[in-house]
Amino acid sequence: MTEEKNQQILLVKRPKGMPTEEDFKMVDKPVPQPEEGAVLIRTLYLSVDPYMRGRMNDRKSYVPPYQLNEVITGGVVGEVVQSKAADLKEGDIVLGNLGWQKYSVTGSNQVRKINPDIAPVTTALGILGMPGLTAYFGLLDIGQPKAGETVVVSGAAGAVGSVVGQIAKIKGCRVVGIAGSDEKNNYLVNELGFDAAINYKTTPDIKKALADACPKGVDIYFDNVGGDISDAVISLLNHKARIPLCGQISLYNLEKPDIGPRIQPQLLITSALMKGFIVSDYADRFDEGISQLTQWVAQGQCKFRENIIEGFENTVKAFLGLFSGENIGKQLVKVADPGQKRAVSK
Amino acid sequence: MTEEKNQQILLVKRPKGMPTEEDFKMVDKPVPQPEEGAVLIRTLYLSVDPYMRGRMNDRKSYVPPYQLNEVITGGVVGEVVQSKAADLKEGDIVLGNLGWQKYSVTGSNQVRKINPDIAPVTTALGILGMPGLTAYFGLLDIGQPKAGETVVVSGAAGAVGSVVGQIAKIKGCRVVGIAGSDEKNNYLVNELGFDAAINYKTTPDIKKALADACPKGVDIYFDNVGGDISDAVISLLNHKARIPLCGQISLYNLEKPDIGPRIQPQLLITSALMKGFIVSDYADRFDEGISQLTQWVAQGQCKFRENIIEGFENTVKAFLGLFSGENIGKQLVKVADPGQKRAVSK
Repeated sequence: MTEEKNQQILLVKRPKGMPTEEDFKMVDKPVPQPEEGAVLIRTLYLSVDPYMRGRMNDRKSYVPPYQLNEVITGGVVGEVVQSKAADLKEGDIVLGNLGWQKYSVTGSNQVRKINPDIAPVTTALGILGMPGLTAYFGLLDIGQPKAGETVVVSGAAGAVGSVVGQIAKIKGCRVVGIAGSDEKNNYLVNELGFDAAINYKTTPDIKKALADACPKGVDIYFDNVGGDISDAVISLLNHKARIPLCGQISLYNLEKPDIGPRIQPQLLITSALMKGFIVSDYADRFDEGISQLTQWVAQGQCKFRENIIEGFENTVKAFLGLFSGENIGKQLVKVADPGQKRAVSK
Repeated sequence: MTEEKNQQILLVKRPKGMPTEEDFKMVDKPVPQPEEGAVLIRTLYLSVDPYMRGRMNDRKSYVPPYQLNEVITGGVVGEVVQSKAADLKEGDIVLGNLGWQKYSVTGSNQVRKINPDIAPVTTALGILGMPGLTAYFGLLDIGQPKAGETVVVSGAAGAVGSVVGQIAKIKGCRVVGIAGSDEKNNYLVNELGFDAAINYKTTPDIKKALADACPKGVDIYFDNVGGDISDAVISLLNHKARIPLCGQISLYNLEKPDIGPRIQPQLLITSALMKGFIVSDYADRFDEGISQLTQWVAQGQCKFRENIIEGFENTVKAFLGLFSGENIGKQLVKVADPGQKRAVSK
């Protein structure tokens, strides 16, 4: 039996603009050994997320930048294959901030055990994980939706946007999604119950399309994308509108700061609120969020899709696909099946 | 005795860019007569305010636009010279939203009687009126200052900004003002107790000057001006910073929407909050604000200056001066002294 290696993906160059395959490198390292209190985890699914692009820049942000020639870290669902910790045993499925690698060693207190009987384990990276919580707290805590209000969501078919729209429907709002394909928009309206959806790539006049879709104006704009789309929405804000600022994916790969019409005059005349946030701002309320989202999923009130690419070697491709809008729902990479016997070096 | 006329200033053209004297016209009208329940008020002081510029455009805003060929309305302190209302008598001093005219008739329930023994009556248009309340609610309700935090105020020597800085000092903050002359900045630091002040007209690098004055970053930015100055402050925001958006005076006279670097990425990575507001959003808490401000003024913790131009005919000049930064503190026009006998038509 050949000795099994730990494949890892390192960041080797800081991307200029849109990242390319050359910014990353796949390397083989020995499979690490856990010390006392730690576990060895085999990656089953790993998450690629838009926020990771920001960490590839050498710039102060809400999370520190990735270091060059180190493994890209991010959300992983994995299986414990060797345990030196009392609270985890082989075969346990866990969620952790581990990274783009086939095996990870970490303290057992750095991961959270997940129950595969409640929902598919992949949901811990999606609707019952960071993206679902991001939607939940951004919409409910910053957006404060009230029945009868109009909510616009950009990046509406993504892992966060699709949950935002469904929660807004549960709260009795009119929900208008903005996404980049008719397939996505059919999904939003026909499967998720959005009231309307706008294809920003084919609509000749997005402001007019929005005005038609929002006859009573916009009370909440959940912003995942930024740029021209946001300018159009902001021109339609109602008095005391709220803008949870979740992402700006249209700007992440620009080489210079983007220039646009100043938004302060519009926020001023509407007494509107705009607030940036990151899900970890709500860390002390995660249990509440997971509990509520789990209930909505169980009741069929929150549906979800996952876009799963097979094979660790396709991780970078999956990541790059986020910026061309290829995914509906949560984008994941499947690395291994649970229960596989691990090849051990002799 | 010649018949006394009611001089009025009308808006006769919508300004393009910076307003000029030609956009206004002074006319003589008969002095109006109060009906039952109403009073005739002689204007003693009238207020000119930056927000009035917005109302001169034909555009939806938080207050409806001024109508062409009608009197410019705004804050007035006046004296009741004829009363047909039970609750006001001749000689009473009142505050009302009356306008750029020497005499006004209004229902007695449309004005508020002010007590000249508590403070000079002019303060009802300044620190104990709309500008003071604007500072009070914008800073305390949106800004939520905590001791030890750093507060930056633009338009710092104006009617609102000068109060913002003093309240922030009362709350134990480090306060940095931005204003347009050394005279103003001396006033801020030496009379009002600001910790530092930056002259944006002479500072070669405002971002560097701000970074030097705010070694711990910026927790609250009370924005009265917008534009490049705001860009510089926003680049220095701390995590969970707050931006009460009060005015954008640097943009009011631009003929096209201003273009600048998009601010959403910076708000996003700092989890910052920006909120537009108008003082009337807090109408149900005015009594609280006036009571607290009155106490701070009485205790000497809030000082104020008024810049009073004499003569109704100088009203437009006083208004235009707001945009060239001529005033320290509240800009007022003195129209008449109280207690003058009114010339009555025979």
